[in-house]
Amino acid sequence: MAGGDDLKLLGMWASPYVLRVKLALSLKGLSYEYVEEDLRDKSELLVKSNPVHKKVPVLIHNGKPVSESLIILQYIDEAFAGTGPSLLPADPYERAVARFWAAYIDDKMLPALNQSAMGKTEEERAEGKKQSLVTVETLEGALRDCGKGKPFFGGDSAGYVDVVLGGLLGWVRASDELHGVKPFDPERTPLLAAWSERFGALEAVEPVMPDVSRLVEFGKMLKARLAAPPAAGASN
Amino acid sequence: MAGGDDLKLLGMWASPYVLRVKLALSLKGLSYEYVEEDLRDKSELLVKSNPVHKKVPVLIHNGKPVSESLIILQYIDEAFAGTGPSLLPADPYERAVARFWAAYIDDKMLPALNQSAMGKTEEERAEGKKQSLVTVETLEGALRDCGKGKPFFGGDSAGYVDVVLGGLLGWVRASDELHGVKPFDPERTPLLAAWSERFGALEAVEPVMPDVSRLVEFGKMLKARLAAPPAAGASN
Repeated sequence: MAGGDDLKLLGMWASPYVLRVKLALSLKGLSYEYVEEDLRDKSELLVKSNPVHKKVPVLIHNGKPVSESLIILQYIDEAFAGTGPSLLPADPYERAVARFWAAYIDDKMLPALNQSAMGKTEEERAEGKKQSLVTVETLEGALRDCGKGKPFFGGDSAGYVDVVLGGLLGWVRASDELHGVKPFDPERTPLLAAWSERFGALEAVEPVMPDVSRLVEFGKMLKARLAAPPAAGASN
Repeated sequence: MAGGDDLKLLGMWASPYVLRVKLALSLKGLSYEYVEEDLRDKSELLVKSNPVHKKVPVLIHNGKPVSESLIILQYIDEAFAGTGPSLLPADPYERAVARFWAAYIDDKMLPALNQSAMGKTEEERAEGKKQSLVTVETLEGALRDCGKGKPFFGGDSAGYVDVVLGGLLGWVRASDELHGVKPFDPERTPLLAAWSERFGALEAVEPVMPDVSRLVEFGKMLKARLAAPPAAGASN
């Protein structure tokens, strides 16, 4: 880390959005202070740092707060360009392609996975499962066509899209036990299944990943609250 | 424009997302071929260029397609860094702030404005109006606090957030006649009202803006179809 840089991450352990930021900081080799937020009793620092959304993650760099996970990832890449590997590629076209898949994961895949797990009715969950299959297969195609046989979305090493998707990996792993859904099925999407093993085993990734059995317990508690609105605050 | 660059924009005249790309190209002084799409009968080129979403805008640069308006704007800024003014600032923190407000416009303000105009029930439209007020006032605060008395979100000249918001300006102007809603009210949000006059009068902007009376006619036609799903294809 550049000398004199003070990095503080406001997070919540089960949030896939927060995990993205942890993964990016770990891959870049940046040290930081982590502050766990109670989203039912948000800290003054969180509310002051992200007054518009009041959500985690927030990365505070030398006193200046940055919110929204995809924006934080790009900020880390740009503010610490000289430290560790780059998340986004250098070529403008490849950067646009990476941003496209990151947006796809957030705008299409995540809502479908959420709906398949937490939809209010059986029909909603069935529709969510159907849409999940479509989005996961589209992403399998992206890994096949853009990856061109490389081990990661970022090519030979993990990059922006790997981190964006990697943030979901804990919940993807918990999903089979929790909801009977295996999003990255080795039969249907062998490349994504292999990617998830490969990414999860990286030296910079493995220690950062949340404990799957703890996510399963947390997910069961959320499912029990299904009729009530989902826990607000852990998003983007 | 850099010699040998071939730029083609697939668009639809009334789309605020397409207008953003036109504004960016105009501010950068880049010439391009514009192709109007019929979204009820999409061209083979559109479907091939954006197979995932099949939506406009698509910018095709030397045969390579880029989709999604915010991603296209950043692509233009990066691929033509040496041509015309930069859209995003150079400083990583200011870039993060600009990206934050661009995301806010897309994720919060646009859905609220859409709901206030096209909500299916009177209650939905009333709730949309309420949320629109909140988001527009939040943006007024951003212009006051971040702009620090400068004429544009980008400072002394129009930049990324100006273009993202500027794409909505045609519909904002049509909204009073169409829906009895004046999103940038001079009394309530004087900075945004002055900004919209200032931005709309720029030499690079004025010739690109859609004709407001034509938008009003188009909006009336959409309103008449209100019970049916909105026209697909013109998005992001």
